[in-house]
Amino acid sequence: MEYQEMIRKYIADEMDVLSRLDVEAINAVMRELKGAFDRGSTVYVFGNGGSSATASHYQNDFNKGISEHTEQKFRFCCLNDNIATVMAVANDIGFEEVFRFQLRGRLKPGDLVLAISGSGNSKNVLNAAEYAKEQGNTVVAITGYDGGRLDELADCHLHAPVMSMQITEDIHMIFDHLMMSIFCKTMCQIDHLKK
Amino acid sequence: MEYQEMIRKYIADEMDVLSRLDVEAINAVMRELKGAFDRGSTVYVFGNGGSSATASHYQNDFNKGISEHTEQKFRFCCLNDNIATVMAVANDIGFEEVFRFQLRGRLKPGDLVLAISGSGNSKNVLNAAEYAKEQGNTVVAITGYDGGRLDELADCHLHAPVMSMQITEDIHMIFDHLMMSIFCKTMCQIDHLKK
Amino acid sequence: MEYQEMIRKYIADEMDVLSRLDVEAINAVMRELKGAFDRGSTVYVFGNGGSSATASHYQNDFNKGISEHTEQKFRFCCLNDNIATVMAVANDIGFEEVFRFQLRGRLKPGDLVLAISGSGNSKNVLNAAEYAKEQGNTVVAITGYDGGRLDELADCHLHAPVMSMQITEDIHMIFDHLMMSIFCKTMCQIDHLKK
Amino acid sequence: MEYQEMIRKYIADEMDVLSRLDVEAINAVMRELKGAFDRGSTVYVFGNGGSSATASHYQNDFNKGISEHTEQKFRFCCLNDNIATVMAVANDIGFEEVFRFQLRGRLKPGDLVLAISGSGNSKNVLNAAEYAKEQGNTVVAITGYDGGRLDELADCHLHAPVMSMQITEDIHMIFDHLMMSIFCKTMCQIDHLKK
Repeated sequence: MEYQEMIRKYIADEMDVLSRLDVEAINAVMRELKGAFDRGSTVYVFGNGGSSATASHYQNDFNKGISEHTEQKFRFCCLNDNIATVMAVANDIGFEEVFRFQLRGRLKPGDLVLAISGSGNSKNVLNAAEYAKEQGNTVVAITGYDGGRLDELADCHLHAPVMSMQITEDIHMIFDHLMMSIFCKTMCQIDHLKK
Repeated sequence: MEYQEMIRKYIADEMDVLSRLDVEAINAVMRELKGAFDRGSTVYVFGNGGSSATASHYQNDFNKGISEHTEQKFRFCCLNDNIATVMAVANDIGFEEVFRFQLRGRLKPGDLVLAISGSGNSKNVLNAAEYAKEQGNTVVAITGYDGGRLDELADCHLHAPVMSMQITEDIHMIFDHLMMSIFCKTMCQIDHLKK
Repeated sequence: MEYQEMIRKYIADEMDVLSRLDVEAINAVMRELKGAFDRGSTVYVFGNGGSSATASHYQNDFNKGISEHTEQKFRFCCLNDNIATVMAVANDIGFEEVFRFQLRGRLKPGDLVLAISGSGNSKNVLNAAEYAKEQGNTVVAITGYDGGRLDELADCHLHAPVMSMQITEDIHMIFDHLMMSIFCKTMCQIDHLKK
Repeated sequence: MEYQEMIRKYIADEMDVLSRLDVEAINAVMRELKGAFDRGSTVYVFGNGGSSATASHYQNDFNKGISEHTEQKFRFCCLNDNIATVMAVANDIGFEEVFRFQLRGRLKPGDLVLAISGSGNSKNVLNAAEYAKEQGNTVVAITGYDGGRLDELADCHLHAPVMSMQITEDIHMIFDHLMMSIFCKTMCQIDHLKK
């Protein structure tokens, strides 16, 4: 089996999506993140499947990556990382509550919620996002496809305009590193692109 | 602060790197992965920092993503996932041994090693890759920058030709999803791109 | 609030359970584990809630703890550790399939399954244990309370005879360290108790 | 090989250590934990090797276990859970900084630190504990053996008086479940021991 043609097609699809990203929307999310940093607020991030690794990656890039060079740290908290808690809530209460449970009795005014769902329709992600909205917190939807219900209820959007879960997840990592590298430059005068 | 210009610049840099990926090299790695699947061999994957989340993401996309639709499963094993082991080896033996230790007395002939290091020079990644080479196993280097020592010793390469750790890590996720989506199509007749 | 009396009560309850453990049953499990080691077979271990941390701890104590001193390594594989996979299966297929899914198309003849469930009745743990039995593999039930359905279907038993989830989980960790320290002594001539 | 005699010996050793635990010291730690809960302060917990699974288990038992039945939640934060961060700090800065790094620019007045080290002498655990003391925060040492340097610098102590890492780690889990079950009873009127 030779895969070259399909490889070229995937790369072309990826570039097409990249060329159609909403720059103003990304800008708006970055202002929310900077606001949370300035306030010392917590930024909750979570998702299903591969997006749980993405959420974990976000926490590292903000709490360690950028924050290595700042006095105060970003306060990202990935709700996927404590497996015991995820497994306990899913088993005792229900999988659709794994994120909402963790926000209840913990979310404070000013905390920011980054909800990742490729389809925008994952029940457990929606439950947590809806809870945050009810509490008056700002919700950032990190989605693909048509954005689903999550895009409708969210305040800001990191959207991958494509009907592919794989390219959607690629773009979600690109959002992370794009924002991280710009914050490294604007907050810490560190340029990610070495000559 | 407005970030639009820097956002556009990052996207343009990303597209530039995408347009320069080595399609033949990706094709060669896919053939190695398909061979490991056909033999029932284990595919070890590991990395530092954000690349540990990337390694974890690879395991999911192959063991669950593709394998949901196959009789036998891919046998990816991410050496970052058991935190207790990583912390035990690092504390008792040394951080530079966390991956080599786990391969010793476990790697079998035919097993494949995917070593992720953006710089290509992480000591603990190199130690494990060198060990695998000594045992006669095939090593795939997943790198950026100039590929470093890891690219020199590896048999196959997933290389991001760019001097940026952030874009390098983006491309590493794209490699994963690109390969996953093509295997879904060729092995399971599932098209990732919905109309 | 002063807690001394309740503390003394908990310790007394713990000692009571310890005095009633089934030594022959532990011995039988240790023989199974030694057999799996000698055959180079994989030992799958998994559980819900706090038992997912317990399962993770088992993998470390066998794959690193004992195996630091042996030529070949124990091949424990904790099915809780790749969070992305757990979240993907739970979201796409169902939480009750998170362990069975991972065994399907991967379990080999001779592989051993350590299924942890305090109540012995967790649906996802039972599904995986039943699957292993159907495939002809040996199942070790790690339980508390009355052992539930899991104790009925299993071949060997690490049972905490107590109607308390907390003491049950304590005893499960004691089983791990007890077996580890004895294997360190018998397989590697290392005495865990320093003078 | 028959193991019965060694099994009985381990259980007897365990019971001996249990009978010698310092009830007043446990009581003092519980008062600190209740204070942190009442103030809404964060409780940081971390350790190496198996103790990283223990730390993860603590977070679950307080944030989910007890907190399932309370209006506000315990705010435990296990510094081992975000593997990417641990791997990034260890690789870029040094393994001895993995916990101190995460406390810097994040620890607030009133936050509590639970530092787990069986020997009491793990460098990375000590660094974080010393940092917390410098900031004026209360440190709980969770140790075994002779308590090492960690016991000297800490304010409160959960100590396993035994020269065995295995029994030390058992006792550390018992401390967790003992405290959890008593808090469930005193804070939520839930009795862990079913009839």
